[in-house]
Amino acid sequence: MNLILLKSGDFISENIACLSDFRFEHIKKILKLRTGENVKTGLLGGKIGDGEIIEIGEENVKLRTNFYKQPPERNPAILFCALPRPKVFRRVLLNAATFGVKETHFFHSLKVEKSYWQSPFLSQDSINEIVENALMQSVDTVAPQVCFHKFFKPFVEDVFAQRVKGMRSFVFHPSKNSQEFDAEKSEKCCVVIGAEGGFSDFEIETFEKCGVKIVSIGERILRVEQVVSAVLGRF
Amino acid sequence: MNLILLKSGDFISENIACLSDFRFEHIKKILKLRTGENVKTGLLGGKIGDGEIIEIGEENVKLRTNFYKQPPERNPAILFCALPRPKVFRRVLLNAATFGVKETHFFHSLKVEKSYWQSPFLSQDSINEIVENALMQSVDTVAPQVCFHKFFKPFVEDVFAQRVKGMRSFVFHPSKNSQEFDAEKSEKCCVVIGAEGGFSDFEIETFEKCGVKIVSIGERILRVEQVVSAVLGRF
Repeated sequence: MNLILLKSGDFISENIACLSDFRFEHIKKILKLRTGENVKTGLLGGKIGDGEIIEIGEENVKLRTNFYKQPPERNPAILFCALPRPKVFRRVLLNAATFGVKETHFFHSLKVEKSYWQSPFLSQDSINEIVENALMQSVDTVAPQVCFHKFFKPFVEDVFAQRVKGMRSFVFHPSKNSQEFDAEKSEKCCVVIGAEGGFSDFEIETFEKCGVKIVSIGERILRVEQVVSAVLGRF
Repeated sequence: MNLILLKSGDFISENIACLSDFRFEHIKKILKLRTGENVKTGLLGGKIGDGEIIEIGEENVKLRTNFYKQPPERNPAILFCALPRPKVFRRVLLNAATFGVKETHFFHSLKVEKSYWQSPFLSQDSINEIVENALMQSVDTVAPQVCFHKFFKPFVEDVFAQRVKGMRSFVFHPSKNSQEFDAEKSEKCCVVIGAEGGFSDFEIETFEKCGVKIVSIGERILRVEQVVSAVLGRF
């Protein structure tokens, strides 16, 4: 945890936050901070700054906050990912949030098992927990938007086709026709990553109608979460 | 599993392998293959090709192998990583093997807890299992060499200083002086990745004496395994 992430509900006055959960434990037991010392803090959705410890006891800690710095720039990629197995979904979302993605979309495709849509990891509470963990790791405060699309065709034709207008888009799909992934360092673009088992020919054709470029990272078949880190780390 | 990885001990004659373990289960229950059908196979340390199912029963499967294709090119990066927590070590090695790294070194540094060196994940059996899983995922046959260095100073001065001769090296260390990671697509180079908590000033200075360039990937603090995928995915 490289940043203590605060939410509006943590504040007992305009600039005093009171924490009694795992963040309190971290400040007391891991960082071993005392009154008068500072810890890096950030306001969810807001700025980053210092939290001065004004009182630390057996049950909670009170911090006087001073936010003065903008969070890092967003990653320019918009992430579209076929919904993977629940534990892989967790890692993909964690990676996306850690790399500062602004917008993530998870959609259905042929190789996505229907049961994945029932996973408790997809609940808002679970998403918040995964994302907040990522932000506290990466020293950021901005949560990505997370959208789910349970039907492939309306997703591509209505959502994706609109979203890619005016920017390049890339689908990662190892095939003989794959080209090199050539997005520029800060190019705003859409990246589409397949399910384990890949996309069907029909799905690839549907994406191609939206002008998507078929690309791959080398000839090896990577795990979904490895592709996500490798792709987002390019920007 | 995108490739059935075979070892010399699996062969009952020159080109017939007999499998009864998880690979047999995979062929029978997941791929649901029958006599006469083919499955992609590779020989550990050797070539890739087909395995024709010549007999499949309740307890084992017999494959007639025909290897004809070289495994993919090695990743040009040599990976040096401060030994992370055991479960992170597992992911780092898995990532390194999946991305086709030829040589990995894990070394001690200030932030590495002594107990990490006792982890059962560091045994040869465990390493083989992690690496073979990675190769079966990525469709490759070449295991990375895995070296351990329990003392920082002799590691840098004797091993690292020799190894980097004639090539560029990069240490990933988020700091004010960090430069951009600018290795070329297929440039043979050494990449050094820190422990959780980063390197000490002394450690950074020691690396700098070997001509290492201090670099970072953006201003966010990433997890070790995310850095590994982001860096190896550049090549």
